[in-house]
Amino acid sequence: MDSKSINQIVDQVVDKIKYPDALTLDVALGIADKVKTKAAQLGVNAVIAISDKGGHPILVQSMDDAFIASYDIAVGKAYTVVSLKMSTSDLKPLAQPGGSLYGIQFTNGGKIVIFGGGEPLLNKKGEIIGGLGVSGGTEKQDTELAAFGKKIFEKGKYL
Amino acid sequence: MDSKSINQIVDQVVDKIKYPDALTLDVALGIADKVKTKAAQLGVNAVIAISDKGGHPILVQSMDDAFIASYDIAVGKAYTVVSLKMSTSDLKPLAQPGGSLYGIQFTNGGKIVIFGGGEPLLNKKGEIIGGLGVSGGTEKQDTELAAFGKKIFEKGKYL
Amino acid sequence: MDSKSINQIVDQVVDKIKYPDALTLDVALGIADKVKTKAAQLGVNAVIAISDKGGHPILVQSMDDAFIASYDIAVGKAYTVVSLKMSTSDLKPLAQPGGSLYGIQFTNGGKIVIFGGGEPLLNKKGEIIGGLGVSGGTEKQDTELAAFGKKIFEKGKYL
Amino acid sequence: MDSKSINQIVDQVVDKIKYPDALTLDVALGIADKVKTKAAQLGVNAVIAISDKGGHPILVQSMDDAFIASYDIAVGKAYTVVSLKMSTSDLKPLAQPGGSLYGIQFTNGGKIVIFGGGEPLLNKKGEIIGGLGVSGGTEKQDTELAAFGKKIFEKGKYL
Repeated sequence: MDSKSINQIVDQVVDKIKYPDALTLDVALGIADKVKTKAAQLGVNAVIAISDKGGHPILVQSMDDAFIASYDIAVGKAYTVVSLKMSTSDLKPLAQPGGSLYGIQFTNGGKIVIFGGGEPLLNKKGEIIGGLGVSGGTEKQDTELAAFGKKIFEKGKYL
Repeated sequence: MDSKSINQIVDQVVDKIKYPDALTLDVALGIADKVKTKAAQLGVNAVIAISDKGGHPILVQSMDDAFIASYDIAVGKAYTVVSLKMSTSDLKPLAQPGGSLYGIQFTNGGKIVIFGGGEPLLNKKGEIIGGLGVSGGTEKQDTELAAFGKKIFEKGKYL
Repeated sequence: MDSKSINQIVDQVVDKIKYPDALTLDVALGIADKVKTKAAQLGVNAVIAISDKGGHPILVQSMDDAFIASYDIAVGKAYTVVSLKMSTSDLKPLAQPGGSLYGIQFTNGGKIVIFGGGEPLLNKKGEIIGGLGVSGGTEKQDTELAAFGKKIFEKGKYL
Repeated sequence: MDSKSINQIVDQVVDKIKYPDALTLDVALGIADKVKTKAAQLGVNAVIAISDKGGHPILVQSMDDAFIASYDIAVGKAYTVVSLKMSTSDLKPLAQPGGSLYGIQFTNGGKIVIFGGGEPLLNKKGEIIGGLGVSGGTEKQDTELAAFGKKIFEKGKYL
């Protein structure tokens, strides 16, 4: 193997380590812990869902006394952000009557959520490798909590 | 155990007896009877649904000549108020196009109803222990009937 | 109007009174009461569903501590007996693998139930005017309770 | 109030404290941790779901590289054991072709699972207060893991 090939391999490995292309359950648990602490500070009993890049849930946690309805909503938000590659806040205006994507809330078996509280999780290269959905507070609170969780992930502060 | 502790215990027990944390079928039947009488007075053929605090129906009754569609709507209202901890009248403005929760009507398998006629049932401590859904009249009538049933329950006049 | 016409009208009216073509909610409530008493004697916490001849539920009652799953099953049994015009016990052998109707349990959105506990309710002319579904005990108990309810109805002992 | 009454009250209160009637998220997380450790020892990438006594999920965790299908199965198992008050292993023979409950796998919207890996969680009084579903290994492994989690809960070793 020549030195050029070796350099390429080294670069790819370093790249792979720095920019994981998948969330692990441990990372998801770390994010969820931080979001729960923040939710408790806001007085919100949240359901927190984290999906992988295929939109499948890695983790769901329902804080004590959370809304029953929040389970489907949080899981749906975590699916939506991965499956459409945008936050549910960004999707919201597009899905209103008259909007360019009005109707998208009906096309995927009820899994698309069109209000705030869902954020995609990106690796350092900008690739979406998962989704975070939060439900249980007002839309403003859910949006804040999801943005907080996204930041926690991106800054690696979930450990 | 000192007398203060005993007093606390006594208070808690009395509390538990005075504030049940679950509806029984007999109580639900009593509420339904009163709501039916009221509906008949208004000339409404109503469907009445009462759910437990988990959102599962305890009772559904369809008055003669009620709308076929009212069954799903009444059951959905009784589910909605428990799973979101608010009346369907309060949910209504939030779920309109442009509202903070627009889209929530699509996220829980069609079980969320966003117009009047659903009221949570609270024990005397203010805890939601069930839900009441009424469908069959105008929205105004359904809302009035649900509010009436809620009052019947809270005043213990269902016997 | 000639006397022949008058006789025909009289016959039809008497016929209509003797052989109702629809269940009322009051009749359904009467049947449910008797079935509940019998279920309590057997130590079964049953869910009882009664449908009209269109297969739509007139009444559902969930006895305290009944299985959560029994709601869908009881409602399904009340639907099945009306929609296929046979008891669920009679349907059972036909729906087994190799049976002539094997597969019918998949064709109606999960509403067809293929084990005992569902009985059609017939007026005195032998026309099906509703269905009774019972769930909560063993299959034998549910079958016994549904047969009991059917008899109560047919003998007019629900008052 | 005489001393006998006070004693009764004390007994009831102690009872309530010793025998909780609801799972908390923290307890569920503790159970999941132990089951994951055991699963890793067995070489199984499991999905673990824990539901409350209403059948609603409190927690779902998908170990890295778990089967995508295991999510629905684990959640279904945790629902099944609560909604039918039996383990999925006990349900299994009843739901086979020719069995007394054959067909129950189709009647609740696909949420009933009829093979091993689901166990109800009982408080010390023997009341079902939640359900545990494990999916990802062979049926034998899932059954073993669910039984292990049930024991962990019942012995209070989840802390």
